Amino acid sequence: MTALPDALSRHAAAVEAEMRATVDAAAAGGGLDLPIHDMARYTLGWIDQHGQPAQAAGKRARPALCMLGAAAISDDPATHARALHGAAAVEFVHNFSLVHDDIQDQDEQRRGRPTVWTIWGVSQAINAGDAVRELADLALLRARNAGAPAEAILDAAARLNSATLRMIEGQYLDLTFEQRLDVELEEYLQMVERKTGAMMGVSLAIGATLAGASAQQADALQLAGQRLGRCFQIRDDWLGVWGDAAALGKSTDSDIRRKKKAYPVLWTLRNAPVGARDALLDAWRLDELSDEDVSAVHSLLDESGASEAANEAAEHEYEAFRSALLDCRPRAQAVVELEAVAAFSLQRDR
Amino acid sequence: MTALPDALSRHAAAVEAEMRATVDAAAAGGGLDLPIHDMARYTLGWIDQHGQPAQAAGKRARPALCMLGAAAISDDPATHARALHGAAAVEFVHNFSLVHDDIQDQDEQRRGRPTVWTIWGVSQAINAGDAVRELADLALLRARNAGAPAEAILDAAARLNSATLRMIEGQYLDLTFEQRLDVELEEYLQMVERKTGAMMGVSLAIGATLAGASAQQADALQLAGQRLGRCFQIRDDWLGVWGDAAALGKSTDSDIRRKKKAYPVLWTLRNAPVGARDALLDAWRLDELSDEDVSAVHSLLDESGASEAANEAAEHEYEAFRSALLDCRPRAQAVVELEAVAAFSLQRDR
Repeated sequence: MTALPDALSRHAAAVEAEMRATVDAAAAGGGLDLPIHDMARYTLGWIDQHGQPAQAAGKRARPALCMLGAAAISDDPATHARALHGAAAVEFVHNFSLVHDDIQDQDEQRRGRPTVWTIWGVSQAINAGDAVRELADLALLRARNAGAPAEAILDAAARLNSATLRMIEGQYLDLTFEQRLDVELEEYLQMVERKTGAMMGVSLAIGATLAGASAQQADALQLAGQRLGRCFQIRDDWLGVWGDAAALGKSTDSDIRRKKKAYPVLWTLRNAPVGARDALLDAWRLDELSDEDVSAVHSLLDESGASEAANEAAEHEYEAFRSALLDCRPRAQAVVELEAVAAFSLQRDR
Repeated sequence: MTALPDALSRHAAAVEAEMRATVDAAAAGGGLDLPIHDMARYTLGWIDQHGQPAQAAGKRARPALCMLGAAAISDDPATHARALHGAAAVEFVHNFSLVHDDIQDQDEQRRGRPTVWTIWGVSQAINAGDAVRELADLALLRARNAGAPAEAILDAAARLNSATLRMIEGQYLDLTFEQRLDVELEEYLQMVERKTGAMMGVSLAIGATLAGASAQQADALQLAGQRLGRCFQIRDDWLGVWGDAAALGKSTDSDIRRKKKAYPVLWTLRNAPVGARDALLDAWRLDELSDEDVSAVHSLLDESGASEAANEAAEHEYEAFRSALLDCRPRAQAVVELEAVAAFSLQRDR
């Protein structure tokens, strides 16, 4: 398997501690540590559904990007301590979105555990997502305690709120695509840039902002992260068709079976000969795909050239990421680490 | 009918303009004015479901409180211009909560129009609520453009996010109460203080903060608003049983028919003789109440003394509001106006 870059785990424990402190303070602030706060702790992977300690956190990729954004600007540990609050904030936003996405997609499992709505019902899951959303800004505002200048926090908050709105736009678009057979590749990439790219971009940008970056530097990093998000998702789509099931820990048929409008499919619909295109559309119009249907679609995608096209598109995004990254005049060590993270996004097999 | 205090409408047009500017800027910021932003505009009462202009805004009570909070501290129009951004923010939070509440309660109508989820479906309604939530912080952060000090905006943002979390706790509790027959009056008031009081309190507090209040002054106003919220809700519960249907524009049977665990019912369950209490619990255990059941419950409440008890409780909250208000050493003219608003909450017939 491709190895995870070191940078992804370096600050993981410190971020986790800051996230826990934020939840505990927020719960205590109301005088009642209500079960809804345990729903948040469950979402974040710290407890199981009975309140017992658990270890079920996600990859925490966005916090790692936030810390790398800070490292791109400064090697002063004091500025990194400020960026921790931004790192906690972006992870809260990400988890809030997962709770609501799971309701919308009716997904019953996440990270090998039952999703929030399957345990507590849709209504309370909406509340739980809403509560985790509030934790994000509360985490960011705690950067004051670490000595971050007020102006930097306001800047970071404006970026975070705008990016979250972009992410919600992305989720809006993604849901509308489920109803359509005529989604264009460009529309798809606009959706991905919002749904995945917005939070990756803002993670880099607010880490940098809290570490003292200029607005121009933060803008460049935000753009870089948006392209990284596109790179990450196109690779994800490639893995969904051609990945190794053992490395991924899930069947590579499932994206086709769910008729996911991912990059390889949309590319084939635009670029394959009429016959292949019509066969694909016919399969997409079926209520359910049989094993033969899935395997026929797989062959269509194998033969269309979509695999090479997706790889080229991901590399294109990787280059765009590198170019935007260098625009922020980052510290050399951070460039090496950020490029390692991006290369992992491009080449990962899981 | 009881007349609405002037103070509730004085800044209505300016708040509305700031809210519209926030939505337009947020939509333009992403480069695509997507339909989800029209879902937000529908929620805010500006357009109908086909995108045509409409006038269906709510009472905008929270923005009025925010502006009164500013007036309590300062008569400088420049500080009032800053408070406008807080006023827009609290109204966005309120509207986000209504969109999600309507999903949770499966309410099909709000302000005489179909609710968001009945038009666009539950999944997109979750997104629409999430989007309106982001607008709140974006509105508040725009106070920088009106010259508000960065520290004051950070203070206001921390108060807003904490109060929103309290409001979500209130909604969490309210939903759990639906499953229970043993809700205590004190628990009910804790729920009300969160669900209604938190946003009323923070409305006053952030208006004051943006107008230059000390933390102590803002704290006092926040407490005052929480008590006002309790006063408002207890009166609301009284009107739900003994209000004038013509003034309210809705049947006064509906709260009983929905088995709402409101103040008069909870008071009766605690204070009435065993026979009356058991009769009430029996009615509450029915799947559906017939006209006779509703009328029997009405008689039980009439005879229990709950009407007087609710009025006394509302007056008690009104006095607590006044006392907390004076603790902030407000400007005299603002005291007159805030007391008029509170007296309206206490005495209103609609």
